[in-house]
Amino acid sequence: MPNDVKPNVAHAELIRFIDAAYRAAGIPQADAAKAAELMAASDISGADGHGVFRLPQYIRRIKAGGLNTRPVGWVGVRHGNHAGAAAVYAAMPLQHDMIGLYFAVGNANHLPPWGGVDMLLSTNPIAVAVPALAEPPLILDMATTVAAYGKVKVAAQQGKTMPEGWMIDRQGQPLTDPSRADDGFLLPIGGYKGAALALMFGLLAGTLNGAANGADVVDFNKDDTTPTNTGQAICVLDIKAFAEPLAFKRQVDAVIRQLHGSALLPGFDHIRLPGEDRHRRIEERRANGIPIPPELRAALDKLAADLHIPPLFG
Amino acid sequence: MPNDVKPNVAHAELIRFIDAAYRAAGIPQADAAKAAELMAASDISGADGHGVFRLPQYIRRIKAGGLNTRPVGWVGVRHGNHAGAAAVYAAMPLQHDMIGLYFAVGNANHLPPWGGVDMLLSTNPIAVAVPALAEPPLILDMATTVAAYGKVKVAAQQGKTMPEGWMIDRQGQPLTDPSRADDGFLLPIGGYKGAALALMFGLLAGTLNGAANGADVVDFNKDDTTPTNTGQAICVLDIKAFAEPLAFKRQVDAVIRQLHGSALLPGFDHIRLPGEDRHRRIEERRANGIPIPPELRAALDKLAADLHIPPLFG
Repeated sequence: MPNDVKPNVAHAELIRFIDAAYRAAGIPQADAAKAAELMAASDISGADGHGVFRLPQYIRRIKAGGLNTRPVGWVGVRHGNHAGAAAVYAAMPLQHDMIGLYFAVGNANHLPPWGGVDMLLSTNPIAVAVPALAEPPLILDMATTVAAYGKVKVAAQQGKTMPEGWMIDRQGQPLTDPSRADDGFLLPIGGYKGAALALMFGLLAGTLNGAANGADVVDFNKDDTTPTNTGQAICVLDIKAFAEPLAFKRQVDAVIRQLHGSALLPGFDHIRLPGEDRHRRIEERRANGIPIPPELRAALDKLAADLHIPPLFG
Repeated sequence: MPNDVKPNVAHAELIRFIDAAYRAAGIPQADAAKAAELMAASDISGADGHGVFRLPQYIRRIKAGGLNTRPVGWVGVRHGNHAGAAAVYAAMPLQHDMIGLYFAVGNANHLPPWGGVDMLLSTNPIAVAVPALAEPPLILDMATTVAAYGKVKVAAQQGKTMPEGWMIDRQGQPLTDPSRADDGFLLPIGGYKGAALALMFGLLAGTLNGAANGADVVDFNKDDTTPTNTGQAICVLDIKAFAEPLAFKRQVDAVIRQLHGSALLPGFDHIRLPGEDRHRRIEERRANGIPIPPELRAALDKLAADLHIPPLFG
């Protein structure tokens, strides 16, 4: 297959494949179905670094014993695992006329404290989802670093160079070769401010829950056996406790339209608000399927053979 | 007085002066005392752009009618006013073994949506305060812009040049002369990410509360008469709902010490964590008083004369 061909897979087909892989790895049926639905929700929305791209690694961890596949009762955010795109969780309350906030400790430390070189912090994401009325919802899902580490992994798998500003090496010089990612670390947004955001929300998502944060974060890219004890925090605000939901959503529409109506800086052709690209990708991928690059297809074909399940493209 | 002399004023003395000014402007006694205490809390902690520096403007608004000085009952965050440094509020729960979060809509729009030039967003601050045990508490108080607008005002008053990266003009070129601030706007941290943080937390602090956000934000630097309808959101987490507070605070100490122990990047001589400078400044200013630059002293002397109250330096 030529390298630039990316065959697409339908959303439902992708869910079936992920579900089969989880069940083949010993995950109970209901959990496999839920996990497949959530993972494919990342793919359909274009958060490719958090979707089926991660499946071979998740399965490797499950097989290696680093993940509890038979949780008893309700599992809190203390003993969580890598959970995919933050927006998936922040967006869940939207359909109930609620606002969602989601914070998590990342599953590998790629960020030193500001001014340091020891990687003691992760790319701890911040996600906030607010519903609108006629407009798509506003959904922010951002790493506190300039680039999420998933983007570095995607660049490495696709053999692409990273832009300057994503990573520096231990001498403070720009690092643009993703295969050299181990020689440096990610840069936080706004310098010390981004490092501080990662620290403070990491305390809320991790330390407060008795979950990993700091030196005890397990690098799940390299260690398949140690439980990650990932911490997540979800906060849901019921709009009607503050305002009439319809009026609120109409007001969110008004703010969105004000922002879209702004005159533009040279070099820009439109105002892009958080969640809009995601919304467009969901519509586009629902219609045309989810693109699976050749490198990923090869990894998933190998996974299917290992697990004795039908391949994604039958 | 030579221009580089900054006479210091004791904390208690500063509170008395601010209190007298508020009472002279018609604020009820208990409210004046509380407002003086909160404003001086900014000064003692080194948030100079939010302390007594703002008093002449606050008094001007009160006299001009843009501020309700006789609120009935409990005033929510819907009809709030400029409230000083965010850290003051986020830090309040600390003494109760609680974590504080504070979000607010700024009192003037200095930020366009990403890619735009129309100033429809403010520097909406994010503050998070987490207690430690033996270490000072971690307190983040940051504008979602590279620089808070208060810093631009301080630079203008002191006749200093701003570093590149704080502001750009409408052609996207760096703007470093603070007296030309009206010709441009602040830059968000991390480009589109900072603009999105300002938008999303502005929706929570402003729109959700029926407070100003977007085009209806009143520029309180230029308009003294229109009520600002400032929105603020405070979230308090009781640590004991999640963990044993002593054990939690001990764990926060451990994270702090890990971060301080990091090897350093070239050009750095220590790891600076959020709240540490604030903590040091509070101790230093408690001992030596609060520095009042000559330009500010002149403004406060004029204010005292206008209000027929004794000057700050008697």
